[in-house]
Amino acid sequence: MGIIVQKFGGTSVGSIERIQNVANRVVHEVDKGNKVVVVVSAMGKSTDELVSLAKQISKNPSKREMDMLLSTGEQVTISLLTLALQEKGYDSISFTGWQAGIETEAIHSNARIVNIDTKKLNESLNKGQIVVVAGFQGITVDGAITTLGRGGSDTTAVALAAALKADKCDIYTDVTGVFTTDPRYIKTARKLQSVSYDEMLELANLGAGVLHPRAVEFAKNYLMPLEVRSSMELENGTIIEEEVSMEKNLIVRGIAFEDQVTRVTVCGLPNELQTLSKIFTTLAQNGLNVDIIIQSTTNDNTTSISFSVKTADLEDTLHVLNSNREELKFTEIQHESGLAKVSIVGSGMISNPGVAAEMFQVLANHEIQVKMVSTSEIKVSTVVEQVNMVKAVDALHEAFSLSVSDKSEVTI
Amino acid sequence: MGIIVQKFGGTSVGSIERIQNVANRVVHEVDKGNKVVVVVSAMGKSTDELVSLAKQISKNPSKREMDMLLSTGEQVTISLLTLALQEKGYDSISFTGWQAGIETEAIHSNARIVNIDTKKLNESLNKGQIVVVAGFQGITVDGAITTLGRGGSDTTAVALAAALKADKCDIYTDVTGVFTTDPRYIKTARKLQSVSYDEMLELANLGAGVLHPRAVEFAKNYLMPLEVRSSMELENGTIIEEEVSMEKNLIVRGIAFEDQVTRVTVCGLPNELQTLSKIFTTLAQNGLNVDIIIQSTTNDNTTSISFSVKTADLEDTLHVLNSNREELKFTEIQHESGLAKVSIVGSGMISNPGVAAEMFQVLANHEIQVKMVSTSEIKVSTVVEQVNMVKAVDALHEAFSLSVSDKSEVTI
Repeated sequence: MGIIVQKFGGTSVGSIERIQNVANRVVHEVDKGNKVVVVVSAMGKSTDELVSLAKQISKNPSKREMDMLLSTGEQVTISLLTLALQEKGYDSISFTGWQAGIETEAIHSNARIVNIDTKKLNESLNKGQIVVVAGFQGITVDGAITTLGRGGSDTTAVALAAALKADKCDIYTDVTGVFTTDPRYIKTARKLQSVSYDEMLELANLGAGVLHPRAVEFAKNYLMPLEVRSSMELENGTIIEEEVSMEKNLIVRGIAFEDQVTRVTVCGLPNELQTLSKIFTTLAQNGLNVDIIIQSTTNDNTTSISFSVKTADLEDTLHVLNSNREELKFTEIQHESGLAKVSIVGSGMISNPGVAAEMFQVLANHEIQVKMVSTSEIKVSTVVEQVNMVKAVDALHEAFSLSVSDKSEVTI
Repeated sequence: MGIIVQKFGGTSVGSIERIQNVANRVVHEVDKGNKVVVVVSAMGKSTDELVSLAKQISKNPSKREMDMLLSTGEQVTISLLTLALQEKGYDSISFTGWQAGIETEAIHSNARIVNIDTKKLNESLNKGQIVVVAGFQGITVDGAITTLGRGGSDTTAVALAAALKADKCDIYTDVTGVFTTDPRYIKTARKLQSVSYDEMLELANLGAGVLHPRAVEFAKNYLMPLEVRSSMELENGTIIEEEVSMEKNLIVRGIAFEDQVTRVTVCGLPNELQTLSKIFTTLAQNGLNVDIIIQSTTNDNTTSISFSVKTADLEDTLHVLNSNREELKFTEIQHESGLAKVSIVGSGMISNPGVAAEMFQVLANHEIQVKMVSTSEIKVSTVVEQVNMVKAVDALHEAFSLSVSDKSEVTI
């Protein structure tokens, strides 16, 4: 008997029927003798509806009032789920973020958790109550309601698990776990039994999308084991934990990819210390995120900088660069759309220097040209033509034997 | 320059357009140099929608969770109204009930306010901010969200006005004030310039319906002047205050009435001390409200008790009484539907003993039979046949000169 924190996202609680289904998942763990804390998001599209109301009043609504408004979404869910649990005969109690003692920075719409006072939650757990907590929200030391920004409910769940010294934190979602690659594209994609925090961070950042990177970082800091699993099916999901010893023999754990990538190259820049900083500060100040960055110095004391952006951001990116042409002192901008990013991820790469080379060889064998490369200790990303994206993923998935279940899959 | 508390009900904030209209009414007072606190209800039918969600899960949902659920309704309104005020260029801030320091009893769904800590509200007012507070809700000393039950937002407004030592409390509604009688039935009905708290209490209890009795009682205890006025039109409303000196010459201030009344008579009851108590405790425990009660002792040591109920409650009333026949020991139940209640209200009656007699004379002159009578110091209620209701109101309105504007109407 231990403490388990369960998190259910907006889709999982999107209707009364689904909330009742969530109640079933909760009591499934309670019946095993566990103390359970449930963290929930707002129902389905309710946050979008609230945002739409505010936008009818103000194009640029104040963040404090948006937090006041949006935090009602989770509050509706916690009361309904608690009613569903009570209806099944289980003692249960709901808490908003502030009632659950979740203190945050005084930054609206994107606050970070600074402290959790678990006194009330522990009192309720010790009384045998199922505790239902509103995700995504907290309170400042001055008593203002804040929200945690993207991935907020995941972060609430992990932070509560850490503060309550829970045995594990289960993240329920609409997929059954973390896959070697996207099963919608690659038929042989296989669910992983476990990944490390760092691998999950790379996969999450690369758009695997089941778990927010911020929550993974939080879990890594507190060594809190996570399990990503389905809210609809009872099968085991994917465990995220520090040591994935039994899968150590697997060098590459997964392949992430995304389309709609554009490469932008800024040519003829002065070869100065401030050049890199100036360009990317300018873009960041205009809300433009860049991904892979490559700098090449040429002979004539000028430099070119290439970076990848989402194709949807290309127009804005060109506009911002051209508006700052005098300041940035470039001679020309080139760009190429219709690209995609394909990455291999695996902590085994650190001790296997040939993995990147193998990746390039596989792509070359399939006549796929690599446009950009970026590497980290546990990841190699390549930019290829979008028409080759699925072919590249398929080839790499096969080459790194990801469709083959390793021994560890059956040993736990 | 003083403090004004304004309260807007659910209909007044029922859409984005109406919330923007409310913002106009608020800044109208701010522009005059007043510090303004605004209390709002949930938008239109949003409370009904939340109740409907809960009822899909549980037929008998826990009151704590219902308070958690329903309190989100006002929280949505405060943020939207604050955004509307900010959009108009006014510094404004929203507070939930608990943020506004409204402490209540630990009774869910029908809590009473026990204390208001105005520190935060005063800080904001002193900064020149318009303060928008969620009506209908508070917090227990243990940090649980409570709601105040029927008339809760009116009560919040009056309680805040008292705690902030406001100059007045304006109750905005969909009528322009308190009328001598219902203008939908009686064309000569006239808006009153002012009524006393006690008169308003009788009128409110009699179904005039613009202001909850509980809020009037609260205002009376703190001698807080109220004004009932229209949220759509700028004209003055009706002031409710202790002394209505300039209208003292008006003996009868208004005529209230309601249809769908049924008289129930329980015959052959034992003439014992506990008889009255037993009957009405039994009815109350089954959620049945009775209005006028008349007891008559007959010769043979038995007694009959008559009371009026809403016709819609007749079936339940008969069922409850018959189910408890052995305990209550009656011989027979008679009932008559198709009745209506007509009441005259006015604090001037206290010193004018002939008013009730005059009322009966007027009704007799119009060949209207009186079925039941009940009197208080400032009210005489009669039960008549429903077909005679409007005729009775019309005759009394004429007889007591209510359609004629008294002098005071022009002196302020």
